[in-house]
Amino acid sequence: MSTALVVVVLAAGKGTRMRSSLPKVLHAVAGRPMVQHVLEAAAALEPAGSVVVIGPEGEAIAEAVRPYPVAVQREQLGTADALKAARDQALPLLGDGGDVLVLYGDGPLITPETLQRMRAARQQAPAPDFVWLGFRPPDPTGYGRMLLDEEQRLTAIVEEKDASEEERRVDLCWGGLLLGDGPALFRLLEQIDNNNAKGEYYLTSLVALAADEGLRAGVVECDAEEVRGVNSRAELAEAEAILQRRLRRRAMDAGVTLIAPETVQFCWDTELAPDVVVEPHVVFGPGVRVGVGAQILGFSHLEGALVEAGARIGPFARLRPGTRIGPEARVGNFVEIKATSLGAKAKANHLSYVGDAEVGAGANIGAGTITCNYDGVSKHRTVIGEGAFIGSNTALVAPVTIGPGAVIGAGSTLVEAVPEQALALARAPQTTKPEGATRLRERQKKQRTEE
Amino acid sequence: MSTALVVVVLAAGKGTRMRSSLPKVLHAVAGRPMVQHVLEAAAALEPAGSVVVIGPEGEAIAEAVRPYPVAVQREQLGTADALKAARDQALPLLGDGGDVLVLYGDGPLITPETLQRMRAARQQAPAPDFVWLGFRPPDPTGYGRMLLDEEQRLTAIVEEKDASEEERRVDLCWGGLLLGDGPALFRLLEQIDNNNAKGEYYLTSLVALAADEGLRAGVVECDAEEVRGVNSRAELAEAEAILQRRLRRRAMDAGVTLIAPETVQFCWDTELAPDVVVEPHVVFGPGVRVGVGAQILGFSHLEGALVEAGARIGPFARLRPGTRIGPEARVGNFVEIKATSLGAKAKANHLSYVGDAEVGAGANIGAGTITCNYDGVSKHRTVIGEGAFIGSNTALVAPVTIGPGAVIGAGSTLVEAVPEQALALARAPQTTKPEGATRLRERQKKQRTEE
Amino acid sequence: MSTALVVVVLAAGKGTRMRSSLPKVLHAVAGRPMVQHVLEAAAALEPAGSVVVIGPEGEAIAEAVRPYPVAVQREQLGTADALKAARDQALPLLGDGGDVLVLYGDGPLITPETLQRMRAARQQAPAPDFVWLGFRPPDPTGYGRMLLDEEQRLTAIVEEKDASEEERRVDLCWGGLLLGDGPALFRLLEQIDNNNAKGEYYLTSLVALAADEGLRAGVVECDAEEVRGVNSRAELAEAEAILQRRLRRRAMDAGVTLIAPETVQFCWDTELAPDVVVEPHVVFGPGVRVGVGAQILGFSHLEGALVEAGARIGPFARLRPGTRIGPEARVGNFVEIKATSLGAKAKANHLSYVGDAEVGAGANIGAGTITCNYDGVSKHRTVIGEGAFIGSNTALVAPVTIGPGAVIGAGSTLVEAVPEQALALARAPQTTKPEGATRLRERQKKQRTEE
Repeated sequence: MSTALVVVVLAAGKGTRMRSSLPKVLHAVAGRPMVQHVLEAAAALEPAGSVVVIGPEGEAIAEAVRPYPVAVQREQLGTADALKAARDQALPLLGDGGDVLVLYGDGPLITPETLQRMRAARQQAPAPDFVWLGFRPPDPTGYGRMLLDEEQRLTAIVEEKDASEEERRVDLCWGGLLLGDGPALFRLLEQIDNNNAKGEYYLTSLVALAADEGLRAGVVECDAEEVRGVNSRAELAEAEAILQRRLRRRAMDAGVTLIAPETVQFCWDTELAPDVVVEPHVVFGPGVRVGVGAQILGFSHLEGALVEAGARIGPFARLRPGTRIGPEARVGNFVEIKATSLGAKAKANHLSYVGDAEVGAGANIGAGTITCNYDGVSKHRTVIGEGAFIGSNTALVAPVTIGPGAVIGAGSTLVEAVPEQALALARAPQTTKPEGATRLRERQKKQRTEE
Repeated sequence: MSTALVVVVLAAGKGTRMRSSLPKVLHAVAGRPMVQHVLEAAAALEPAGSVVVIGPEGEAIAEAVRPYPVAVQREQLGTADALKAARDQALPLLGDGGDVLVLYGDGPLITPETLQRMRAARQQAPAPDFVWLGFRPPDPTGYGRMLLDEEQRLTAIVEEKDASEEERRVDLCWGGLLLGDGPALFRLLEQIDNNNAKGEYYLTSLVALAADEGLRAGVVECDAEEVRGVNSRAELAEAEAILQRRLRRRAMDAGVTLIAPETVQFCWDTELAPDVVVEPHVVFGPGVRVGVGAQILGFSHLEGALVEAGARIGPFARLRPGTRIGPEARVGNFVEIKATSLGAKAKANHLSYVGDAEVGAGANIGAGTITCNYDGVSKHRTVIGEGAFIGSNTALVAPVTIGPGAVIGAGSTLVEAVPEQALALARAPQTTKPEGATRLRERQKKQRTEE
Repeated sequence: MSTALVVVVLAAGKGTRMRSSLPKVLHAVAGRPMVQHVLEAAAALEPAGSVVVIGPEGEAIAEAVRPYPVAVQREQLGTADALKAARDQALPLLGDGGDVLVLYGDGPLITPETLQRMRAARQQAPAPDFVWLGFRPPDPTGYGRMLLDEEQRLTAIVEEKDASEEERRVDLCWGGLLLGDGPALFRLLEQIDNNNAKGEYYLTSLVALAADEGLRAGVVECDAEEVRGVNSRAELAEAEAILQRRLRRRAMDAGVTLIAPETVQFCWDTELAPDVVVEPHVVFGPGVRVGVGAQILGFSHLEGALVEAGARIGPFARLRPGTRIGPEARVGNFVEIKATSLGAKAKANHLSYVGDAEVGAGANIGAGTITCNYDGVSKHRTVIGEGAFIGSNTALVAPVTIGPGAVIGAGSTLVEAVPEQALALARAPQTTKPEGATRLRERQKKQRTEE
């Protein structure tokens, strides 16, 4: 049986290099704040609880991570001090004993798989009391080195500047993440001192303290990219790029064609079925699901939308939250759809805005159709029946209902309901003045000369 | 005089790693199914005929490659077996003798230049009976090695697992493609056995059989990228990227400016003249030709369109098949053009849909103009004369003709022809109610409260 | 006190490999002709004057660099000859003496920082008479090598083909740029001969001549990318990519979030404030400034626009020159704004063209609104008051004024002014024919059959 697990996410850093009024861990990657990625990765271990350690001005973080509890670290006195701040939240959750996993809110690239390997390592006999995460970068210069004994136990973490020549040749580097026995961890925390240049309390001091007590410390290795922290906008962009590569790869492995993968922006929760084809230059915002064989053409921007099998979206389509595009329906260029359900095989192919509407199967929304859903105060709904034909350049003033099979003449502004199979028009008569253009141009030119 | 040549394209593989309902070789790169790229590369050699070997469920492939004939390989029993399946189609074409070129339907990166070098090698005295294609990858691990004698003749192809330490140091790897004397090839095919782990008949067995008979086997080398096969969506994307690099490079060498080449998607047949400037983020679908000095601005999507010299397209323009944009004409943002000819210096600059139309030179299509070309049953044409001026937000209900020099007032829905130089309007009179907005808002708010 | 400085930019090369009718140095990178980048980099040194050397057909260059003077090199007789052509322009500016800086019009990647280091090197005691720029590429093959004596003085520049084995191992390569004492430079120029394969006069010959006179030549090193020249469209694209990387990095360092930096195209003068967020796929043309916390969503194209703090632009927005978007205003999808001021919190969210307009704070421009600003001869202005509500699919025929708080009914074409708080409409009455659609479809089908 596995012991209880409590996750502590350190998120109190000021992040001044971000030059932002937004707290660092709330900056998003793949459409979600960094700290959420970390909490989600940990959630795969089904912990008894998770605590986020914030600084005194971390109210926005507390808001964002709710319902996860936060602990406030009053002063920036180092990682060990931050962990102490979490103690009051964590100890009750640990009960008679259990594990603590220490993660970093600005390290959104850690994977559930790696955390699970740390968990497994902790559970293997003879169980190490602490499991630290390490990595082997192509060039270890600058990183803290992890020194192991002949039994592959961690004996020390040495900073570059304190390392001997031999120690510098070690390429196993300290990744920061730690899984350990909770009671032991919190007991040893008390013994960490701040006799160092910055006067801070460091988690790395645990290694020596644990060794003194005869506790065992193991190491799990991961890919160097998983332990990257984000401290600047450039590093934020690099983390984004790594997540995007993973998401694109996952989609392709599942049978999605990405013609130019590097031009397709995914969100952490994008779900694409097999045989979906995505043209170059597409942005997926949060909450998009696309069914088998659908096509997403270039320059499309989707958010909060369900696209069913065989539908074709774009190019130049924008789907906003609350959109459902039915099977084999088509949304074409310069068309925006919002909070609307488009029935099977319905079409809105050109220059239209369809908002707060329900469009029946097989209906045809002509070019330049606008649902006038907002009157300046409230939003109203438009209902278009199955097989209805909305002529081009039509304004549908909601609330309004167009019956099944009805036809609306081009250029109409409709304010009243149209029954099933009816024909409706609202169009001014055409007047044509022979040679009127000639005379108009003469007037315009004269006017211009006079100005 | 060159001997007859028959091309056999192997395309019977199941491609299960694609996770697709579409046969693997029909997946497109640079806008064309992979197998078509292979057939086109071979066409440069002007073969007497080409045969595509398909599996029992390859009907869609047969359809796609028509008029090229297909041969069906009943069971997946290896490359040599596939070649035997092609024999009945190939032998009549070979006549009194001639060459057979074996290509792979999932290898779309092979170039005509390399095939021509294979052909040339086969024709040099003393002519080798078989010419195999080889390549030298940065890391040969995992590839079959080609062993040569002191005369640079191929003596064996050894798989990695069967290779000695010395053989593994050989970096010349087996590319799979083969050009050989047809009668000899088909004779030796009969002798290939399937005494191997999978019980299949392999083309590589030819090497030893040919050597036994004293036949000569030469090797032509090519760039490693040319022999890449596609077995997954990720490899499909890699092949696409390689083709795109070639196409972009070709355009730049011809005098085209690509401001950000990696954001421009080409089709295999895109033709851009010198001094064309392409901004970032442009997609060329099939059948696009662009004349000297034209500009294609960002976020444009072109397909089946001829853009003449000095025209300016975009940003945010969509040209669909059947479009001709005349010299120095302009198509601006959020404008879709379909099956339409736009005369010299004509303009459609904003938010318009122009379909099934003929627009005269110098005509001005105002913002928000829609040609209502579809009545729900048929498509109809719109004709706009030279120098006509279509006011903004106008709907032209086709079939309709606007004469040369005519002017259409803004906001009109036109259903009747307008003569040359006439002025036409279809506009409801404006009514203005003082303080009407104040009263309207009061009503709206009251209504909202009541709801 | 620093001596006078005269800058000579060599721009007479024919650039035939560009395959262009535009002179090479006028090809743009980061939105500005290459030669302008070079002149701007030099401007940071506050020279007494700058001269551009053009060829006999360089009139377009002379036009583009105005008010900088040009000197014409009659024949292409080498770099030293080009410099002589600049003498008549340069000598008067040098006065009693001073420095000459030689730059290349097709080398747009040189930075002011490097030029300043050359200037500083020239002013250090003992002052070298000439300062040459050098670089160390990863592979020096093909470049001229710079040979130094034990005092790090330049003794010779050797071409690859003339270099000894030992000299080829030198990795300090000749970058071409030169800063030197003007009188000495122009005196030595006279002694340069053309005893070489091409019969041209080369600047590199200066090194030996200066050494003969006992003059000192120092070397300043720079990053290899700074001395890259552009001779083809592919090299133009590479220079563009390098500049883009610099601009993206500068923006991120200043606190801008670029979600996918490599998909954002900058202009040399783009200014983005901290906490601006730029989604993937955005193009900045010349003259864009964006205020704190504004969001630029995907597929937006901005040029000559000021976007104030907290505004939200896009996706699919186009801002053209003369646009000011007020604080917290919103410009949404498929909206084009030109020569227009949009007040604080005003909205134009869907499918609109707003040109030559002034829109008051908090006004709401409905979907499909078009300002009809052009009558075929002149442009006219539209004024929309604070808090006005423009219903969807409305055409505003300029010149026209909509008063503050006024409401315009959807689908109207407005030609007359609307007073403050008034309600205006221009709408044809709706007529509905029961079963009209059924009868229409019967007619259409019959007609189609008859055709």
